[in-house]
Amino acid sequence: MRAGADSAITRNGKSIILAYDHGLEHGPTDFDPVPETADPEVLWDLATHSAVTAFAVQKGVAEAYYPSYEDDVSLLAKLNGTSNLWMGEPDSAVNWTVENAADLGADAIGFTLYGGSNHEVEMQEEFRDVQEAARDEDLGVVMWSYPRGQGLKNDKKPGTIAYAARLALELGADIAKVKYPGSEESMRRAVRAAGPAGVVMSGGSKTSDRDFLETVESAMDAGAQGLAVGRNVFQREDPEGILDALEQVIFEEATADEALETVGI
Amino acid sequence: MRAGADSAITRNGKSIILAYDHGLEHGPTDFDPVPETADPEVLWDLATHSAVTAFAVQKGVAEAYYPSYEDDVSLLAKLNGTSNLWMGEPDSAVNWTVENAADLGADAIGFTLYGGSNHEVEMQEEFRDVQEAARDEDLGVVMWSYPRGQGLKNDKKPGTIAYAARLALELGADIAKVKYPGSEESMRRAVRAAGPAGVVMSGGSKTSDRDFLETVESAMDAGAQGLAVGRNVFQREDPEGILDALEQVIFEEATADEALETVGI
Amino acid sequence: MRAGADSAITRNGKSIILAYDHGLEHGPTDFDPVPETADPEVLWDLATHSAVTAFAVQKGVAEAYYPSYEDDVSLLAKLNGTSNLWMGEPDSAVNWTVENAADLGADAIGFTLYGGSNHEVEMQEEFRDVQEAARDEDLGVVMWSYPRGQGLKNDKKPGTIAYAARLALELGADIAKVKYPGSEESMRRAVRAAGPAGVVMSGGSKTSDRDFLETVESAMDAGAQGLAVGRNVFQREDPEGILDALEQVIFEEATADEALETVGI
Amino acid sequence: MRAGADSAITRNGKSIILAYDHGLEHGPTDFDPVPETADPEVLWDLATHSAVTAFAVQKGVAEAYYPSYEDDVSLLAKLNGTSNLWMGEPDSAVNWTVENAADLGADAIGFTLYGGSNHEVEMQEEFRDVQEAARDEDLGVVMWSYPRGQGLKNDKKPGTIAYAARLALELGADIAKVKYPGSEESMRRAVRAAGPAGVVMSGGSKTSDRDFLETVESAMDAGAQGLAVGRNVFQREDPEGILDALEQVIFEEATADEALETVGI
Amino acid sequence: MRAGADSAITRNGKSIILAYDHGLEHGPTDFDPVPETADPEVLWDLATHSAVTAFAVQKGVAEAYYPSYEDDVSLLAKLNGTSNLWMGEPDSAVNWTVENAADLGADAIGFTLYGGSNHEVEMQEEFRDVQEAARDEDLGVVMWSYPRGQGLKNDKKPGTIAYAARLALELGADIAKVKYPGSEESMRRAVRAAGPAGVVMSGGSKTSDRDFLETVESAMDAGAQGLAVGRNVFQREDPEGILDALEQVIFEEATADEALETVGI
Repeated sequence: MRAGADSAITRNGKSIILAYDHGLEHGPTDFDPVPETADPEVLWDLATHSAVTAFAVQKGVAEAYYPSYEDDVSLLAKLNGTSNLWMGEPDSAVNWTVENAADLGADAIGFTLYGGSNHEVEMQEEFRDVQEAARDEDLGVVMWSYPRGQGLKNDKKPGTIAYAARLALELGADIAKVKYPGSEESMRRAVRAAGPAGVVMSGGSKTSDRDFLETVESAMDAGAQGLAVGRNVFQREDPEGILDALEQVIFEEATADEALETVGI
Repeated sequence: MRAGADSAITRNGKSIILAYDHGLEHGPTDFDPVPETADPEVLWDLATHSAVTAFAVQKGVAEAYYPSYEDDVSLLAKLNGTSNLWMGEPDSAVNWTVENAADLGADAIGFTLYGGSNHEVEMQEEFRDVQEAARDEDLGVVMWSYPRGQGLKNDKKPGTIAYAARLALELGADIAKVKYPGSEESMRRAVRAAGPAGVVMSGGSKTSDRDFLETVESAMDAGAQGLAVGRNVFQREDPEGILDALEQVIFEEATADEALETVGI
Repeated sequence: MRAGADSAITRNGKSIILAYDHGLEHGPTDFDPVPETADPEVLWDLATHSAVTAFAVQKGVAEAYYPSYEDDVSLLAKLNGTSNLWMGEPDSAVNWTVENAADLGADAIGFTLYGGSNHEVEMQEEFRDVQEAARDEDLGVVMWSYPRGQGLKNDKKPGTIAYAARLALELGADIAKVKYPGSEESMRRAVRAAGPAGVVMSGGSKTSDRDFLETVESAMDAGAQGLAVGRNVFQREDPEGILDALEQVIFEEATADEALETVGI
Repeated sequence: MRAGADSAITRNGKSIILAYDHGLEHGPTDFDPVPETADPEVLWDLATHSAVTAFAVQKGVAEAYYPSYEDDVSLLAKLNGTSNLWMGEPDSAVNWTVENAADLGADAIGFTLYGGSNHEVEMQEEFRDVQEAARDEDLGVVMWSYPRGQGLKNDKKPGTIAYAARLALELGADIAKVKYPGSEESMRRAVRAAGPAGVVMSGGSKTSDRDFLETVESAMDAGAQGLAVGRNVFQREDPEGILDALEQVIFEEATADEALETVGI
Repeated sequence: MRAGADSAITRNGKSIILAYDHGLEHGPTDFDPVPETADPEVLWDLATHSAVTAFAVQKGVAEAYYPSYEDDVSLLAKLNGTSNLWMGEPDSAVNWTVENAADLGADAIGFTLYGGSNHEVEMQEEFRDVQEAARDEDLGVVMWSYPRGQGLKNDKKPGTIAYAARLALELGADIAKVKYPGSEESMRRAVRAAGPAGVVMSGGSKTSDRDFLETVESAMDAGAQGLAVGRNVFQREDPEGILDALEQVIFEEATADEALETVGI
C-alpha cells in the first residue's frame, strides 16, 4: 500500500469501479438479461458516465476499445481470471502482463487472490510479481480479495471478510475489493482491518434498486471507499439511472432514500 | 483483439483456413483415405488455391516447405498441439515459439485453448505469452477455442460454444475458431458473444458435400467470418472442387445449392 | 552466516525483534485483545521504543509506513508468509523480493523455513535465492526456523529445536529464530548447534509477564542473542512496560525479578 | 525439418549412428557380454570405422574423449536420458544443453520423445527449446521417437511406429529414429508418414548376424535412411565385422546375404 | 568428466575428502559422540591436516569460516542437501549456486544424485545446470551418487553401485562418490564402470579403526581414487590419528595393518 497510488482511479478518495470481466468469469450467460451488453461497446459507453472512476476489463476487451476511449475512461486492467467451465480448486490464470497493460495505457491494475485455496501460495507469489511491476510503472493496485476453496466453509463470515481486507494491505495492494459481510458493523471491522488501504464493496449478483443502494449506503457508512459493480448496473433496464443514484450515495453522501428520490428511478 | 490484426490471413474480412496439423493431433491415420496426403507437398500445393486465405501447420511442416511457398501461401503457425497417443486431461504442448515462427515468416499464429480442462489456467498463461509476443511481431492471433475436459459433459452445447467464442475475445485473440453448435441460431449467439472478434467454424470430420456446404452456409448467415477446414478438404477425391464451392459460399455469398451447381461437384 | 552481517538489527550483539506479520499469518483476530493494534501506525510507534532493534513486517505494511519511520526504526523485511485460511502442508509464499525490500531501505531480511514439511526442498531453494540476493545487497538474514509438517510429531522437542537452529547456520542465515524448547538446557543445546549464528527465541502466544520474562531470562542464560516478540507485547495493556522490562533482561542482564521490580509492572 | 540439416552426420544421405548411451539408460550390465566395452575409449575407436557416420553419447563421455577424436568422429550429442533404476511413467532428463554441446563441437543433437507418456507435453516443450537452439547453432536434430507409457499397449504396432515417425516431422526433427515395426511394409508406412524427414531404424537388443542384417536390409528397402545401432555392434566378438557388413547393406545396397559373404563373418 | 578438472582437490591423483554436512543431512545428533564437533571451527582445524585434500561443507559453514582458512583448506562446496526431518521420496534442495560458491573461492563443487528416486529426472536436470556452470568457473565436480527411492530395494547391491559410478561419468562428473559395495571385486566393478572418472568410497557410519582401514585398503586395491569421510573421523576420540592412518593407506599404499602400526592407534 502506498498513499495516493490509487489516485488515477478515485475521485476525492472515493471510487466506483464498473467491472465487466463477466465474459471470462461467468460466460455470455450474464449478458442474457440485456442481450446488447454482450457488445463491449455498450459497456465502454456506460463507463464514460461521470459516476464511474474506473472500468475493469480483461486484456482482449481493453485492446479492442481502449484506444478509442482513453480520454474518457480510466482503465483498471484486470490481469487474472478463469472461466467457470473449469471446476477445480479456486485459481486464476494471469492472462495479462503489467508491462503490456501499461503500454496500452492502463491507469491501475486489478488482481484476484483466493485466500484459503490450495493455490493461495502460488497466487500470492504471482501477486508479488504483479504488485512490484505495478510499482515500477507507477500504477495503483486493486486486490479482488476473495477467500475461497478447501479451507473455507463460509466465505462471507465477518472474520473472513476482515481477513480478506487485511491480506490486501499486508501484501501491498492499495485497495481491497471484498464482499459485503452482511452488516455495517462487520463491514466496519473489515475497513479497520485494512488499515490505510481502501476498501471497496463488491456488487455481486443483481438485487432490487433499494436493497442494493441501502447496502452501498451501509458500506460507505462503515468507512468503505466505494463500490465495484457489474451486474447490478448492466443487467438493469436503466443502467444510467442506477449509476446516477450510486453517484449520489458514494460521492454526495446521500442516503439510499434520497438518491432514489433525486434520481427518480 | 485488435482491429485489422488478422488482415494477413483474411480477404475482404473473410477467411478459409486450410488446416493440416492432423499428423500431430491424430496421426497418419487421417491420411489413409487419400494416402498421398501424407506428403505435405500435396497439401502445400492445395494451399495455393485462391480460396485459401491461410494454411495452418506445425513447425516441422512449415520449416521444411514454407521457404518454397512463401509467395503463394499465408502461413498460420499453429504453435501448440499434442498427439492422441496421450490420453490425459486435455492439454497441448507449446512446440513452437512466436519468435521462431516470425523468423520463418509466419503471417499469424494459432493456439489451442481447452477451456474447462484442468490445464485451463496453465494454457491461458501460455496463451498470454504467445499473444503478447505476437503483438510484438505484429501478427494476428487465432484461438482454437475448444472447451473440453473434466468440467464439460457436452462440448457442442450452444452455451458452451458461445462461451468458447467469448474466451477468445476476452483473452485477446483476433479470431475464434469454434465448433459448429448445431444450428444457425446458436452460431449467431456465438458470433454475438465474440463481439468484435471474428468467428470461424471448425470443419470437423468428413461429411457429404451437401451437408458440409449447408453447414458452412448457415454459419456464414449467422455472421461467421469463415471456415477452418482440413479433413473435409483433403480426405476428398476432389479437394479443389470443394475449395471452389467453399469459395462461392464464403466469398461470393452463394448458397450451398448454388455453389454445388456452379462448381459441378 | 557472515560475521557482523546482522549488525543493522542488533545492538551490542543482542536483539529484540518486534514482529507484526500477524495480519497475514493469523488474520485480524490477533488484534482483538487490543483493537487499536489493527492500525499499523500504533505498532510503528511502538517500534521506536529503545528496546526494539528491528521491526519485522510484510511488504504492504512496510511500503505504507517505513518512509515516515526510516530514521527511527530498523526494518526487518519479512519476505514470505501465508494466511491461516489455507490449511495444507506447511508452506509460505514469497511475497516480497529482496530487491524491492532493499530499494525501500530494509536493514535485514526475514524468511520462514518449515523443515520437515513436504515443501522443505522448495522452501530451501527459495531461501537460497533470497540469501544470495541479500548478500548482494549487504543485508543480514534471519531465518524463522520452524520444523513443521508431515515429518514432525512434536515441533518443540529439544532435538528438533536444535536441528532448526543448525539448519539456519548450514543454509547461510545469520540469525536463527526458534521456539523455546522448554528448558534452559535444551535452549543451550540449540545455541550450541547454531555455532556462530545467533539464536533468538520466538515469543509465541501471550503468557503472564512473569512467565514470559523468566523464559526470556532462561533463553539469554542459555546463550541466546535475543528475542522476537509480537503478541506478548502488542496484546498487553501496557506494551511499553513489557518492552522496558525486556530491555532490562536482554541488554542489562537483569533477572526477570529485577526487571519486574525496576519497571514496576 | 530442414533440408540438408543432417548432412554432418550422413554420407550420401544415409547414416549409421553408433549409439553408446547404454551406461546411462541401462547401466553397466550392457557391457557384461564384452567387459572391455565399459571403457568408452574402446567405443570411440570403433566409432572411427568408416561405416559410422555419427557417434551418439551423453555429455560426460563426450567431454572426456571428443577433444581427442574430433577429427575422426562425428558427434551426435544425446541431450536427454534417464537411468532404468527409476521406474515411473516414461520421462527423460535433459542433461545437456545445446549450447554446451555446440561449444564442445557437436555435429548434431539427439533427443528422446516418449509420445503417449504422461510426460509427452513436457517433453515436447523441452524438444521445442532444444530444436530451436539447434537451429541457432546450425545443428541437425535426431528424434529418438519412442511411443511409450500409460497410453500405449503395444509400442511396436505399425500404426504407432508410423505415428512416431510423423511426430518427428511435425515437431521439427530432421531424422526420426524408430523401432522396426516388424515388416518391410510397415516400415514403408513409417517412412511415408515421415515425409521429408529421414527415418533410421533402431537396432535394439542383440540378435544373430543374419537376422540383424536381414532386418536392416528390409528397412533400407522400405526407404529408411539408415540405422542406429549399439548392442548389435558392441556386444559382438567382432564389432568391426558387423560394421563392415552394415556398410555393405546400407551404403552399397548389398543384400544381407551378399554382405555376409563379402565380409566373411 | 574432464581430465585434470579435479586437480584442486586431489594430490597425486588421490583424495581424502573430509565431509561435514551432517548438520544439514542428519542434524546435530551426529555431533553427540564428541560434542565439540558441533563447533565448525573444530572441523575446519581438522581439515588443515595434511591428509585432507578437500573439505566438503554447505554454504553457511563455508561463508562463516572459509575466508579464514582459504590458504590451508581446499573447499569442496556441497551445493545440495536436505534435512532428515523430511521423509518423502529422496530429493535434495539446491541451496547454493555455483556462482556464489565460486565467488567465495570454492575449489570444486559437490552434488548429490539419488538415481532411482522419483526425483531422478529433476535432480539430473539440476545437476546439468550445476555441472555446466562449474565448467564455466573451471571447477571440478564430485557426484555423491546414491541410488535410493521407490525404484531400489537394496542400495548396496554391486550392480547398483557400479551403475551409480557410471551415472557420474555419463552425466559429466569428474569424481563419483559411492558406497562401498561389500567386496573388493564389487568395488573394482564400480571403478571399471566409471571409466575415466575417479571413484571415492563413502565412509558411512562409524566402525572400528581396523574395519574401517581394511575397507579403505580394499577400495584402494580395487582402483578407487580415495575416500570421503565424516563420522569415521570426527566421531573418534583421536581424529588426527585416523587421518594419519588414512594418509598412509591412501597416499603411501600402506596396508591397514602397517598404517595401524606406524600411526600407533
